Amino acid sequence: MTNNHHFTQNPPQRFIDLNCDFGEGYGAYTFGQDAALLAHVTSVNIACGLHAGDPHTMRKAVEMAASAGAAIGAHPGLPDRLGFGRREMAVSAEEVFDLTLYQIGALDAFARAAGSSLRHVKPHGALYHMAGRSAELADAFVRAVKAFHPSLMIYGQWASELLNAADRHGLRKVSEVFADRSYQTDGHLTPRHLPGATLSSSEEALRQTIGMVARGTVRTIGGADIAIQGDTVCLHGDGPRAAEFAAALREGLEAAGIGVRPPQ
Amino acid sequence: MTNNHHFTQNPPQRFIDLNCDFGEGYGAYTFGQDAALLAHVTSVNIACGLHAGDPHTMRKAVEMAASAGAAIGAHPGLPDRLGFGRREMAVSAEEVFDLTLYQIGALDAFARAAGSSLRHVKPHGALYHMAGRSAELADAFVRAVKAFHPSLMIYGQWASELLNAADRHGLRKVSEVFADRSYQTDGHLTPRHLPGATLSSSEEALRQTIGMVARGTVRTIGGADIAIQGDTVCLHGDGPRAAEFAAALREGLEAAGIGVRPPQ
Amino acid sequence: MTNNHHFTQNPPQRFIDLNCDFGEGYGAYTFGQDAALLAHVTSVNIACGLHAGDPHTMRKAVEMAASAGAAIGAHPGLPDRLGFGRREMAVSAEEVFDLTLYQIGALDAFARAAGSSLRHVKPHGALYHMAGRSAELADAFVRAVKAFHPSLMIYGQWASELLNAADRHGLRKVSEVFADRSYQTDGHLTPRHLPGATLSSSEEALRQTIGMVARGTVRTIGGADIAIQGDTVCLHGDGPRAAEFAAALREGLEAAGIGVRPPQ
Amino acid sequence: MTNNHHFTQNPPQRFIDLNCDFGEGYGAYTFGQDAALLAHVTSVNIACGLHAGDPHTMRKAVEMAASAGAAIGAHPGLPDRLGFGRREMAVSAEEVFDLTLYQIGALDAFARAAGSSLRHVKPHGALYHMAGRSAELADAFVRAVKAFHPSLMIYGQWASELLNAADRHGLRKVSEVFADRSYQTDGHLTPRHLPGATLSSSEEALRQTIGMVARGTVRTIGGADIAIQGDTVCLHGDGPRAAEFAAALREGLEAAGIGVRPPQ
Repeated sequence: MTNNHHFTQNPPQRFIDLNCDFGEGYGAYTFGQDAALLAHVTSVNIACGLHAGDPHTMRKAVEMAASAGAAIGAHPGLPDRLGFGRREMAVSAEEVFDLTLYQIGALDAFARAAGSSLRHVKPHGALYHMAGRSAELADAFVRAVKAFHPSLMIYGQWASELLNAADRHGLRKVSEVFADRSYQTDGHLTPRHLPGATLSSSEEALRQTIGMVARGTVRTIGGADIAIQGDTVCLHGDGPRAAEFAAALREGLEAAGIGVRPPQ
Repeated sequence: MTNNHHFTQNPPQRFIDLNCDFGEGYGAYTFGQDAALLAHVTSVNIACGLHAGDPHTMRKAVEMAASAGAAIGAHPGLPDRLGFGRREMAVSAEEVFDLTLYQIGALDAFARAAGSSLRHVKPHGALYHMAGRSAELADAFVRAVKAFHPSLMIYGQWASELLNAADRHGLRKVSEVFADRSYQTDGHLTPRHLPGATLSSSEEALRQTIGMVARGTVRTIGGADIAIQGDTVCLHGDGPRAAEFAAALREGLEAAGIGVRPPQ
Repeated sequence: MTNNHHFTQNPPQRFIDLNCDFGEGYGAYTFGQDAALLAHVTSVNIACGLHAGDPHTMRKAVEMAASAGAAIGAHPGLPDRLGFGRREMAVSAEEVFDLTLYQIGALDAFARAAGSSLRHVKPHGALYHMAGRSAELADAFVRAVKAFHPSLMIYGQWASELLNAADRHGLRKVSEVFADRSYQTDGHLTPRHLPGATLSSSEEALRQTIGMVARGTVRTIGGADIAIQGDTVCLHGDGPRAAEFAAALREGLEAAGIGVRPPQ
Repeated sequence: MTNNHHFTQNPPQRFIDLNCDFGEGYGAYTFGQDAALLAHVTSVNIACGLHAGDPHTMRKAVEMAASAGAAIGAHPGLPDRLGFGRREMAVSAEEVFDLTLYQIGALDAFARAAGSSLRHVKPHGALYHMAGRSAELADAFVRAVKAFHPSLMIYGQWASELLNAADRHGLRKVSEVFADRSYQTDGHLTPRHLPGATLSSSEEALRQTIGMVARGTVRTIGGADIAIQGDTVCLHGDGPRAAEFAAALREGLEAAGIGVRPPQ
């Protein structure tokens, strides 16, 4: 369903991936809007059982994603189910290596059983930020991915240590940008507590995204244009209008001649 | 170290595997006598994080086993860390499938990172007994193993539903026998609460084991000889004399012309 | 809000308690319809952190219930968060004692901090059924409650071992009946897989409940009238019409001259 | 056993408490040397189930400590069983309040069942350090203790925010000092990575401890004497000579005319 849009004329020259977190329930608990978002994204990051997800939700999530044709990625998080992997923890590089490898392996088993396979790995929550900031943790994360399979892609934030580590280890990096967040001159997001951190409308978000893909630049909160590489956009599943925004973004991108597909 | 014994003359015609549970610590907690037993066994069953084990212990266990040359197997258990996977739980066949697949995948990632690979899967504790007794749960367990990789062997108790399920699904089965437990006419172990359930000496245990391998029979507690297939013997890590018993058994088997090696 | 209905004339001579499970979220996960049901029930059973609930949800649940004037009870469950305490586990009587005491104590701390106190204890899920069926486990459960405080009431199913154990230990028992389930001659519920297990309408459920309170009898599925003691009715939070049914039941009871209040 | 030493003549005018962590096993896992240390300490800090301990170990630990006459305290930790509560986590003040209250309540239930009661609360591991450093977290911790019962004492490190918070809230503070660690001019411990962080011998440790109690001073690593209040000394259970050191310290203190007893 997701990826079978046909472009019979004027095929797009530029593409972007739309990803979302997926399979974040646990036992009797559900979370997010998997089914609604799956109609719009081209890749999913599936929770692997340490911060969210369990063997059953993982199998179901893989089966849903595979049958929709979305690219499947592992979404390893910190071992903090109570905190949903959102609280930073003082984990060592060795711990990051081990818990990343564990979670990729567990998810891969379900991909394999579904006749599919993993395409990428993206750290979740606090681990995403920690591996984005610390070269040492980023390195441990990337080494774990590479130890599992060097063809796996690394999803990481633009201008992050995680993408640098992917480069160093020769893994394909996928630069994640945010549609509805403003950027600073150094390529980092404007922190949420500052004014202007979040764009005010879907239109503005669409415009920013198109610019990042079509021109490779983004206008910072200070008004300058800086270079940026936008390979994938993360769509959030929370909020009542999440699916609506996802649909509008996808439609707007395609109308602007930007194709939507998983990273190749 | 473990498997490089040379038999320059009169090479043994019969072989048996010696296996033990392995890597059953958790975080700051240690368990059992991994290093001591590793010197004597030819295959290990490594805990996979649900009843015992964690990403770090799993990596370390795989690395230890691989460097000793022991065959590595996954040892999935029930999701009951507090009960060490020893308490039966009312899990469905679907839950058994999912949690088995999850655990195999997680361990396989570490085997892969160590340049090794999994050879077998053996259910742990209560799951071992439940899958030994219930054709439905045994089936779910074997299907999960097969979905991961059909070359994986199934370790299961002699005369159990688990071995039957392995047969039905065309997986290589490895019949596990007990050196120091007595058998009943139906091939099942004498329950522990009955007199004579446990053999009284290492010598008797050795004699029983040699008989099972060399002649394919065991004398039951009732005095009859029944057919039995002994492919592997489980050595327990608990008890102060565990390693001593393991050494004596291995030595005694080799002296009787029975080779000790992983299932081929 | 909940309990301040005034009966200026013809005050009811008969009363019943309406209870519901409460505070069953975990971390980022929500569950059920706490706020909606709280408007209609007179007592709540709060999850204590082993099968559901966590320190934060427990404090919030206690505060909500206390400010609504609902009687607060502990709802200890099996240590199986993944299974939401719904899977039976082979726990010993000693384990039931220990885990019950642990959970009561943990919840009591929040009641105390809120200037409130616990009134009752009701086992959750599989533990409810196991302690209803096994005199030994029921005994362990009641001993734990009594060890904490002998004034605590025991909520248990009519005709269950749990109520028998409360009797033996001199604790106040509160007999729980079901509005929308049919009964058999022995006072047990008709198992769900049998026809007629569930009453077909809210009207029928109301009629059955009124009969249990007003006359102390219930018409069984076989058509006989048997004696039954209905001290409290459990209202379920799942299903889209849960709050609606709760409201209708409460209204209907009050219209029939039956007061709704916590057990005294 | 622990506290019935008689001083028939020259009763000591000065006293100190010796405390140790206690009940840190989990399920099938044991930890530390509870029985050996219990012979020497006068108070114990019992793990409460989040970083270590479980309902069963808690009951057993309370019973052991009560029958030995040791003062019983709760030892709440971060919700990180895999990390044994030793990894710092970004928990909020509200989370500290909630998890502290939860753990005190759970342990209190076992003290109550054993006919005993809690005397003190001491944060464990990373929480000890975080509440020692952050006035906000210290405040949340102390408010939770006070909400449970204002007579509970707070064990905290000398010169820590935790003791300041106890003061602010009017709780009895017990200043913990370390026998075998050196101090800096500001009253803080010399960090472990610096030379001289650890005293080189038991004799030196004994001398330092006697000085802290008898004179209320300690000689810093820089050579100055600073004021210090030593109400309790923490004895560690790890290391092969832990019990030996505990015995020597206790004997040495008593020989110097310093009585050993729980804080009054």
